[in-house]
Amino acid sequence: MRSYHLDPGRGLAGLTLRDHDVPEPGRGQIVVRMRAHAVGARDLLVLAGTYPLPVRPGVVPGCEGAGEVVAVGADVTRVRLGDRVAATVFPRWWDGSFRWEYATQLGTGTDGTLTEYALLDADGVVPVPEHLSYAEAAALPLSAVTAWHALTAGGMPRPGETVLTLGSGAVSLSVLQLARSAGARVIVTTSDGAKAERLRELGAAEVVNYRECPDWPDAVRELTAGRGADRVVDPAGPLSMSLRAVAVAGEVALVGTSLSGPAGAHPVDPSALFAAAAVVRPVIAGHRAHFTALNRALTTHRLRPVVDRTFGFDAVPDALRYCRSGAGVGKVVVTHPGPPR
Amino acid sequence: MRSYHLDPGRGLAGLTLRDHDVPEPGRGQIVVRMRAHAVGARDLLVLAGTYPLPVRPGVVPGCEGAGEVVAVGADVTRVRLGDRVAATVFPRWWDGSFRWEYATQLGTGTDGTLTEYALLDADGVVPVPEHLSYAEAAALPLSAVTAWHALTAGGMPRPGETVLTLGSGAVSLSVLQLARSAGARVIVTTSDGAKAERLRELGAAEVVNYRECPDWPDAVRELTAGRGADRVVDPAGPLSMSLRAVAVAGEVALVGTSLSGPAGAHPVDPSALFAAAAVVRPVIAGHRAHFTALNRALTTHRLRPVVDRTFGFDAVPDALRYCRSGAGVGKVVVTHPGPPR
Amino acid sequence: MRSYHLDPGRGLAGLTLRDHDVPEPGRGQIVVRMRAHAVGARDLLVLAGTYPLPVRPGVVPGCEGAGEVVAVGADVTRVRLGDRVAATVFPRWWDGSFRWEYATQLGTGTDGTLTEYALLDADGVVPVPEHLSYAEAAALPLSAVTAWHALTAGGMPRPGETVLTLGSGAVSLSVLQLARSAGARVIVTTSDGAKAERLRELGAAEVVNYRECPDWPDAVRELTAGRGADRVVDPAGPLSMSLRAVAVAGEVALVGTSLSGPAGAHPVDPSALFAAAAVVRPVIAGHRAHFTALNRALTTHRLRPVVDRTFGFDAVPDALRYCRSGAGVGKVVVTHPGPPR
Amino acid sequence: MRSYHLDPGRGLAGLTLRDHDVPEPGRGQIVVRMRAHAVGARDLLVLAGTYPLPVRPGVVPGCEGAGEVVAVGADVTRVRLGDRVAATVFPRWWDGSFRWEYATQLGTGTDGTLTEYALLDADGVVPVPEHLSYAEAAALPLSAVTAWHALTAGGMPRPGETVLTLGSGAVSLSVLQLARSAGARVIVTTSDGAKAERLRELGAAEVVNYRECPDWPDAVRELTAGRGADRVVDPAGPLSMSLRAVAVAGEVALVGTSLSGPAGAHPVDPSALFAAAAVVRPVIAGHRAHFTALNRALTTHRLRPVVDRTFGFDAVPDALRYCRSGAGVGKVVVTHPGPPR
Repeated sequence: MRSYHLDPGRGLAGLTLRDHDVPEPGRGQIVVRMRAHAVGARDLLVLAGTYPLPVRPGVVPGCEGAGEVVAVGADVTRVRLGDRVAATVFPRWWDGSFRWEYATQLGTGTDGTLTEYALLDADGVVPVPEHLSYAEAAALPLSAVTAWHALTAGGMPRPGETVLTLGSGAVSLSVLQLARSAGARVIVTTSDGAKAERLRELGAAEVVNYRECPDWPDAVRELTAGRGADRVVDPAGPLSMSLRAVAVAGEVALVGTSLSGPAGAHPVDPSALFAAAAVVRPVIAGHRAHFTALNRALTTHRLRPVVDRTFGFDAVPDALRYCRSGAGVGKVVVTHPGPPR
Repeated sequence: MRSYHLDPGRGLAGLTLRDHDVPEPGRGQIVVRMRAHAVGARDLLVLAGTYPLPVRPGVVPGCEGAGEVVAVGADVTRVRLGDRVAATVFPRWWDGSFRWEYATQLGTGTDGTLTEYALLDADGVVPVPEHLSYAEAAALPLSAVTAWHALTAGGMPRPGETVLTLGSGAVSLSVLQLARSAGARVIVTTSDGAKAERLRELGAAEVVNYRECPDWPDAVRELTAGRGADRVVDPAGPLSMSLRAVAVAGEVALVGTSLSGPAGAHPVDPSALFAAAAVVRPVIAGHRAHFTALNRALTTHRLRPVVDRTFGFDAVPDALRYCRSGAGVGKVVVTHPGPPR
Repeated sequence: MRSYHLDPGRGLAGLTLRDHDVPEPGRGQIVVRMRAHAVGARDLLVLAGTYPLPVRPGVVPGCEGAGEVVAVGADVTRVRLGDRVAATVFPRWWDGSFRWEYATQLGTGTDGTLTEYALLDADGVVPVPEHLSYAEAAALPLSAVTAWHALTAGGMPRPGETVLTLGSGAVSLSVLQLARSAGARVIVTTSDGAKAERLRELGAAEVVNYRECPDWPDAVRELTAGRGADRVVDPAGPLSMSLRAVAVAGEVALVGTSLSGPAGAHPVDPSALFAAAAVVRPVIAGHRAHFTALNRALTTHRLRPVVDRTFGFDAVPDALRYCRSGAGVGKVVVTHPGPPR
Repeated sequence: MRSYHLDPGRGLAGLTLRDHDVPEPGRGQIVVRMRAHAVGARDLLVLAGTYPLPVRPGVVPGCEGAGEVVAVGADVTRVRLGDRVAATVFPRWWDGSFRWEYATQLGTGTDGTLTEYALLDADGVVPVPEHLSYAEAAALPLSAVTAWHALTAGGMPRPGETVLTLGSGAVSLSVLQLARSAGARVIVTTSDGAKAERLRELGAAEVVNYRECPDWPDAVRELTAGRGADRVVDPAGPLSMSLRAVAVAGEVALVGTSLSGPAGAHPVDPSALFAAAAVVRPVIAGHRAHFTALNRALTTHRLRPVVDRTFGFDAVPDALRYCRSGAGVGKVVVTHPGPPR
């Protein structure tokens, strides 16, 4: 069986595919025959050497993926042979607030999902919802779990509240789907007319074109009778704009900062933070209980993550190049031959 | 203009209709020409003298109603002449946890809504949503606000969670509508096949007939893969059954106890409470901010409370007799001649 | 090395001491040379066969204890050889709300602490605070963690709030110490004058003798200017009395029900629950993050759990008999020869 | 009787003292014979015209003060003649999250406390704790209430947690006293050796001199075993430093931004916010229920706010000049002749 390995800081050039024996599970471990993976901006940062967590040289990259349990170690009770499972990004973060002792992360400090057979903690996976394919399940662990975490950390938005999500990245798409299923009114920003159409199809009540309307926070205020959005999910910044668009006593969930340009490109004045009178909450992925709750929501509402394009396992570098291009709407997925679920 | 007045403890026999001058608003007050009222089980308890709060002899009964602002006192800024407003049950409970200093209640300690012209605190009303008639708005202040409070006190149920509500009373109907708008899966109990049909039309995912299935908590567990309901809203008890139907770490909102028989009829063993491992939360109506948030939810989802029957202002005793019969599904409303909104 | 084993339902007669080899740690496991244990009411229920969770025949009993790490398995990073550690009652409940998947419990379904060398999950222990002896550390995992959980589940009481704890059992003593360190005013009930003195020494602002004052909830109301206690921690019931003593919008934490007599002895009327207008929250032990936070509090305030009497490892049956007698104030601890820390 | 009035934007030069009749209370109003006031940085901003809320020309300035009720209007039940009361800064913000409809503020949009006889809403005052003088009570409404709000908005810190507060301003002093009464370990920064001594006397566990130690966030990390402070209360910034000193999953309460220099002087990079993985929460004063809870804490722990210097009513401009100098530790209070309580 084959696994990708990376040489941190060398980008795609540092990515190699090597042969290995299929691993044997130790106590508490399982082997998952991977059937699909997802790749994205986070993997590009890891390869580039600019990711904020330490990356072990030679590590198997990838933190998203789903597959079938093909071997089970001693003392494993959560999972059985043949189960369809998805990986969790932080296999030791099960619940509660993030703590450093939960920080073990697939694909940076410990081997990740971009392999044909992954050796995983039995505690570090969740069952795949019945209605989802492996490709769809692979699209969940980072973006959709982050979206669920961002929406629920300050309490799930209530029916009638307004959620603003910035851009059409994978986290935004999940925020749109999930906030809508919670009865919120969702406003999305984009700079692209074709994407706007797609966002409306996915349930956006309003789409604001931030290129045509550079003062888009004002547009959000107009759409909310002057209040602003009760929640803003901000994956791309600039935060200063989110602060102008958020309602008093609302919340901005900051789900990423690296996409809006180099560090220092968009500084925020603390007085703008104070004047917004809204909480700013950094959100980094999510825990296993988030994932389980997300899966219940997806199951009840028969929701599926948006998959943009699919690549073969040998084409992971192409998949990552495609991610880098910023084209498309939805997750970029890598699949293996075989039945889709 | 005419007002009803009550003689506590004498039931319907204590209800009289008297003539008065239209009141003048003092500082901070408004006069509302009432256009609709709702009556229900709470009013019967007040008349019967079994309501848990003290009732002032001669008080104008009624805690629900809506109408038009026809006079405005000094220093009033929240409300303008001509506004369509609904009363709040506790005019001094604006937000936060209940405190005794907020306990002033319409229709018990202070004059209520069953009058043609109500003198109200400007701070004790909320605007009526545009899409609702006066009759519909009158149906909100007690039942729908209680439902909102019950659903949100422990955090709004999340998409995919299961909400169980007991019976087809007005609070249950609002719980059904609101929980569904929040993406929850709603199970309702009833003993009546015709009501079951109506509950399904209103969005119940499952209806359990507690007469046909006396061990209905088991049925709820079967419908939830053994977990039980994440939230139970219990207006009628018996609480011991709710405790058998609730999920571990879930919550039972107790929104009334008087309807399931005399005090002492359905005692609960504390060990059942302990074993349920779920919070039990008494919920008494709600505050003004609940009402405002409810109205936003109703507006966004174009939801309307279920109105069962409408009576004229002279027929309030008939309306209350009809309530007592337990027939029907939805609120019993009293209206005045004039345009419906 | 020797371990106790139990035959559920036979009480102390079912307790046997057997010889074993010292275990070898598997992946993720450690071996702890136990230096102290605590025993109490929960162990008596387990032995009697009346504990609410299933008990595996032959299991090593005991869920509290502390000792020294003498062997470490593969992939263990949280713990090192020589560390002083205390067991957690639920080794897989790390954080968040209780879930059935966290329900593995020492001394019922899985081997517990009443052994000379315990084989434990490395994830199921916490470091012992520097200032505590092994005997003191052994006194924490059940009673003190439950107390911390009970106090914090609804938010830590604030300075100036009143906490009422019932009786002088081990949970109550910890509630007293911890609530006091949080700036709350603590009222305790007891029926014993000598214990009253001890409770005052430990920081109780008021001690109410429930034998001399059978209407002790009225006494609590008098001591709180009519409000009642903001929090009640109720390990012994009757719950109906706690409901009379709690403040509106307060909380009763129910930390046990079996001590106040047989099931059904003290039923509660749901209308009393409703009238109390306070949340009732069942609290079952606590998770690892509770224990860690508790240890920080103990360390900062140099607090020590109250140890009543100490027995030798061979005298565990005597220790349990002593527990059953209800005499004493504080935890009953079992120690091994050797330095105290 | 005399009142100060201000001409916004003219600073101290715009402050005039004028004669008036003693006001008559309308419905729901009271007249308070003011016995003490406090002044501070907020008043300087209001006078300078740089305060973020609109200031009515000619308004009576001042938002802090205490006195005796000398007249009571119709329908007032919360307050009686002769009561010792303190003003609340936002007389219509009683509880819950801040909303614009609660934004009426003493001394900006509506007449404030710098008068001999203040006409106030009966709902906009709280009783003065028995153990406090008028001068001490006058020191509470802004700084101490803000401190309470900042400490409790994310849940009161728990015993053993670390609270960092920046500088020795009045909010910091209250944070120090209150967090300590809650069992937290408090670290304070200052640049002045004499103030450091005073802070230690008031209960600071550690004082960090930010002038001697420009990388003081590192010092805070060292003092907290690398974790950082669980809570930071930041009245003065720079926020970028607070973010370096806060623990993961901790919280920075931003209680002011104008003191650390002109807007834009200390911008923050959103990536620093993200990396801190801690919530940033703007905190603007607090509501009446905060004040009431604060008073209970002060009463239980016999705490008194730190009063630095006292000026006479005619010397308000001198008091404000003294505030501007930044000398001293504690509140600057203005008193009237008469008994101190």
